[in-house]
Amino acid sequence: MVVILKKNAPAEQVEQFQSWLAEHYQLEIHESIGQNCTLLGLVGDTTRVDIDLLQAMEIVENVRRIGEPYKFVNRKMHPQDTVVDCGGVPIGGGHFTIVAGPCSVESEEQILYVAQRVKAAGAGLLRGGAFKPRTSPYAFQGLRGEGIRLLLEAKKATGLPIVTEIMDLSQLPLFADVDVIQVGARNMQNFELLKELGHCKKPILLKRGLANTLQELLMSAEYILAGGNEQVILCERGLRTFETATRNTLDLSCVPLIHELSHLPVMVDPSHATGHARLVEPMALAAAAGGADALMIEVHNDPTHAVSDGAQSLTPDAFDLVAKKVFAVYDCAKNLK
Amino acid sequence: MVVILKKNAPAEQVEQFQSWLAEHYQLEIHESIGQNCTLLGLVGDTTRVDIDLLQAMEIVENVRRIGEPYKFVNRKMHPQDTVVDCGGVPIGGGHFTIVAGPCSVESEEQILYVAQRVKAAGAGLLRGGAFKPRTSPYAFQGLRGEGIRLLLEAKKATGLPIVTEIMDLSQLPLFADVDVIQVGARNMQNFELLKELGHCKKPILLKRGLANTLQELLMSAEYILAGGNEQVILCERGLRTFETATRNTLDLSCVPLIHELSHLPVMVDPSHATGHARLVEPMALAAAAGGADALMIEVHNDPTHAVSDGAQSLTPDAFDLVAKKVFAVYDCAKNLK
Amino acid sequence: MVVILKKNAPAEQVEQFQSWLAEHYQLEIHESIGQNCTLLGLVGDTTRVDIDLLQAMEIVENVRRIGEPYKFVNRKMHPQDTVVDCGGVPIGGGHFTIVAGPCSVESEEQILYVAQRVKAAGAGLLRGGAFKPRTSPYAFQGLRGEGIRLLLEAKKATGLPIVTEIMDLSQLPLFADVDVIQVGARNMQNFELLKELGHCKKPILLKRGLANTLQELLMSAEYILAGGNEQVILCERGLRTFETATRNTLDLSCVPLIHELSHLPVMVDPSHATGHARLVEPMALAAAAGGADALMIEVHNDPTHAVSDGAQSLTPDAFDLVAKKVFAVYDCAKNLK
Amino acid sequence: MVVILKKNAPAEQVEQFQSWLAEHYQLEIHESIGQNCTLLGLVGDTTRVDIDLLQAMEIVENVRRIGEPYKFVNRKMHPQDTVVDCGGVPIGGGHFTIVAGPCSVESEEQILYVAQRVKAAGAGLLRGGAFKPRTSPYAFQGLRGEGIRLLLEAKKATGLPIVTEIMDLSQLPLFADVDVIQVGARNMQNFELLKELGHCKKPILLKRGLANTLQELLMSAEYILAGGNEQVILCERGLRTFETATRNTLDLSCVPLIHELSHLPVMVDPSHATGHARLVEPMALAAAAGGADALMIEVHNDPTHAVSDGAQSLTPDAFDLVAKKVFAVYDCAKNLK
Repeated sequence: MVVILKKNAPAEQVEQFQSWLAEHYQLEIHESIGQNCTLLGLVGDTTRVDIDLLQAMEIVENVRRIGEPYKFVNRKMHPQDTVVDCGGVPIGGGHFTIVAGPCSVESEEQILYVAQRVKAAGAGLLRGGAFKPRTSPYAFQGLRGEGIRLLLEAKKATGLPIVTEIMDLSQLPLFADVDVIQVGARNMQNFELLKELGHCKKPILLKRGLANTLQELLMSAEYILAGGNEQVILCERGLRTFETATRNTLDLSCVPLIHELSHLPVMVDPSHATGHARLVEPMALAAAAGGADALMIEVHNDPTHAVSDGAQSLTPDAFDLVAKKVFAVYDCAKNLK
Repeated sequence: MVVILKKNAPAEQVEQFQSWLAEHYQLEIHESIGQNCTLLGLVGDTTRVDIDLLQAMEIVENVRRIGEPYKFVNRKMHPQDTVVDCGGVPIGGGHFTIVAGPCSVESEEQILYVAQRVKAAGAGLLRGGAFKPRTSPYAFQGLRGEGIRLLLEAKKATGLPIVTEIMDLSQLPLFADVDVIQVGARNMQNFELLKELGHCKKPILLKRGLANTLQELLMSAEYILAGGNEQVILCERGLRTFETATRNTLDLSCVPLIHELSHLPVMVDPSHATGHARLVEPMALAAAAGGADALMIEVHNDPTHAVSDGAQSLTPDAFDLVAKKVFAVYDCAKNLK
Repeated sequence: MVVILKKNAPAEQVEQFQSWLAEHYQLEIHESIGQNCTLLGLVGDTTRVDIDLLQAMEIVENVRRIGEPYKFVNRKMHPQDTVVDCGGVPIGGGHFTIVAGPCSVESEEQILYVAQRVKAAGAGLLRGGAFKPRTSPYAFQGLRGEGIRLLLEAKKATGLPIVTEIMDLSQLPLFADVDVIQVGARNMQNFELLKELGHCKKPILLKRGLANTLQELLMSAEYILAGGNEQVILCERGLRTFETATRNTLDLSCVPLIHELSHLPVMVDPSHATGHARLVEPMALAAAAGGADALMIEVHNDPTHAVSDGAQSLTPDAFDLVAKKVFAVYDCAKNLK
Repeated sequence: MVVILKKNAPAEQVEQFQSWLAEHYQLEIHESIGQNCTLLGLVGDTTRVDIDLLQAMEIVENVRRIGEPYKFVNRKMHPQDTVVDCGGVPIGGGHFTIVAGPCSVESEEQILYVAQRVKAAGAGLLRGGAFKPRTSPYAFQGLRGEGIRLLLEAKKATGLPIVTEIMDLSQLPLFADVDVIQVGARNMQNFELLKELGHCKKPILLKRGLANTLQELLMSAEYILAGGNEQVILCERGLRTFETATRNTLDLSCVPLIHELSHLPVMVDPSHATGHARLVEPMALAAAAGGADALMIEVHNDPTHAVSDGAQSLTPDAFDLVAKKVFAVYDCAKNLK
């Protein structure tokens, strides 16, 4: 971190400031006096330094962070790719898979049927929402505990590990047999939840918030890793922008960027990102070619009668075809490397 | 709600679709056959209709919502302004006040001093963070339960009702003596929390998320009102945009818009919105002139040593001046009406 | 277009409004009287109807557009793909190519060398900036007329058709021998320029503005087609969002969406979109897999000494590899279809 | 500007880099060697340094700009407020005015009537569009030369100086008698136009682009001032964000921020920013209280029959009231300072 002091900063205040910095944050300070300004290089663990606070000080002209504000998720600290073990299915470090299933678990018949179909098409994990965050209090809120029970039935029947979303800390006991716990986009900065999941022994699928930067996503993952849980998968599912032709704007460039900055695997969810079933295939192929470690795709037995997100779900037949193409493009791109 | 059907939609499917709509959502359907398309007018409570689902159906060309998807927060259902009683201090319906205090409660001495100063300057409520949502796991996370205890001490000493933020449902018992419970921007769509607060008898201060539309804010308030709690204040604190010169972009036009759409009072928080102490005064004056029912302003005894958000806090002396000007401008604008 | 009238709209005003609509816009009006509101279906060419104006009228509750506001770019009017002939190289309708070259033309030696290298790597067209839009008046503004002369030299030497950007109408005479005229993102809504290019017989490469919707992009293309020039290629080069980790956010989902809405070919420019040379390869592969008809990639002989956009340029050696992979992934994805 | 070099940057390359920097940009270099990295402080005119280029170099870890990239618009170079003389009406430095008139000039009768009414209400300048940038090629494009003639008639009749928009350089000769030339939001980065207006002797009203940062706005003004024309007024008219309840999101906090960074006056246009006539009053009052030097407000004799932007125009009667309130709030806020 570099602090640029104002030209006319009184020597006494500068000295006092340096002592405070050194002591308060346990840092080493390197002073460099130029013609127009004095630079202070802050060496040590600057993750705790509050940039806004320094910038508000009278003698400070400007502050610039050089290093990243995260440690455990940083590739510099952990150069090799993390491979997350999702109930026996690995994700990351060259292991690619597709997570598929309906937005909401609706009935035993539905989830069993979809599970069998997505397994047959090559999916590695089954997804299905039991607790559903819905903008409207009048929309279907999920089968909740019963939904998890049905997912476990589907797991028993097909052998597919399951992924499902937690909405509140109080629901955690119900997730004992779930293979991967999903933290939804709206909860990406639910810090109390993240802290608790840091003490949990299960893989966490952390979805990026609609308006969160990559750095904020990595900081939220840092909450989990700092608690001791290193099994985290990051998931891009679209940003909120001014464009209304798609539900969100899929930020695919975050995939190679996260791979640079962190060792954690990255999943892409083209269903939620675009909101349109007919855009899922091209964006799934793009993600597979662009380096994603996994895809999450919504599949519903009867999209026009789905109780949530029907518009973006594929039929099992359509998914068969998309999965086949995705694996082919992923292999093609991988073999070129 | 209007559903536009495709030109060549088979009559049989159209009939089936109409029956399904009527039954599934308990609606009355008005058909209007034009040269190029058939329009269906849906009459009744359309708040539960899933537009995305309808749009995904093969015979549907397009769907347009006409009414609003919320009821209890809708001014059409409740024409007169709601006045929220915040521990004896009214907000809304012509009652204006300033909520002031530090971002974080840091010590008894600090919170008592600030409480006395903001009271003397004319503030109606005291704010102070006990549970602090922080992007970094390494940043100060608040005094938590102890913070609430100190706020109650300050309340006892000054008589100012207190506002403080809840971060998780499990903290609710600690809020028994708090006057107004704040739901932070990151929790605006924490629906489990909102549902629970709907059963609570206290005023709720609901902050707009950084990337949430006005309609989503109203839908989140609807969760609380639908649960039976009508004491809700909405708070604008800036949107996340491409502009980086300010922390966020304050969306002041939401104030008159919310007043049109809803009966709930609107607070503006220029401190969080701008992130710069020196922008607080002009934006506070703008909000007061533009129709806000209340302001929330950060005041800290010693901003350069604040443990959080020091850069945007006013000193008590600066707040004296800002408060004086704010009341003068508010009165001037009000008397013109 | 559907106009929803207010419940209590006086019959006389409704009648007057209908006559005005019919006459002013030459439309047929279908009235449908429901219990709660009256719907007017507007049939005919509604592209000229000013929605904002209708919405401002007292008796109007709401207005919804059903059709698209463009004609000539609409796939409904022109179902088969347009193939644009770029100086002998086709783009669109299954013809894929890469446009490559430096951000700015800097010298004869530079442009000749780069042209030879990108041709050898398989590029179909040469790009190079002669007129450069730069945020700062102190930055390099391009070689201007001399730059175009050098591009023509490179064309003569290699046979590659050339693409270069026009910044102002007054420069048009200098573009007589240019194969494809590029309209930059900042000029996407320079309507006087678009009108003039509509009368021109050359292919136009129209880049999407940083903050323009897909619909606005199509409307700008409509200006050109309405003038009589149907040779238009649309180019996605990233949106301006809150994310600062990349220069812009590449909106790849616009590729399949434009293919649905329009018959015009779509190019993707991963260099400008990401702003980082090391993100060009993954995003180029993603675009090729996701259905783009062409790519634009910046290649510079010596990126660290480029006078503009060096940070995002590939070296010729790096481009060799990227081009090879792009063609392989494109072929793989195409053969799956 | 500070350049942070990588830990292991070879001494020889560092030396070479320093020589190149010093020579290429004519800068003085201050080296500061720390434990983890080497900092280079760049002293001199760094406005021309290409940050992206430096960042792409192998030995560079990071680059941070400290100073602003503009000179002539910088308040540091010109501490006192610029007062722009708009045909006899001053704007800036404590001189406040309202610019009012219709979006488009439609007829002699219309513009004369509106001019008389806004003058009577206290407006200082008359606005009216002759050349109209419209998203659709099928929308009204303005009366063009004839529109300017009618504005000059209105000026003769009322004495109000006139403001109107230029869309292309070729139109400049028609602006000989216009008092203030407006550059619209879509042309904010039409650099060829800005350069030419730098050589012109008339005040320029430069509107901020929908997706342009404050810094880009100041850089565009720098183009004009660098050419020798210091009579520039900046105008905020809303940003493009994800919020669709208003046409754009008015960024009022840019007013005090520009006043800090620059000496140029700032106008606010609540009509275009909000797009709704009924939001004009509260946002006009907010702008007046928040420090704007001028307002631009659309007034039309018959908004429901306006050929453009009727939805956001006030009637002359409504404007009478708004103007009265605006002047009262402006005076109240000013007298408090």
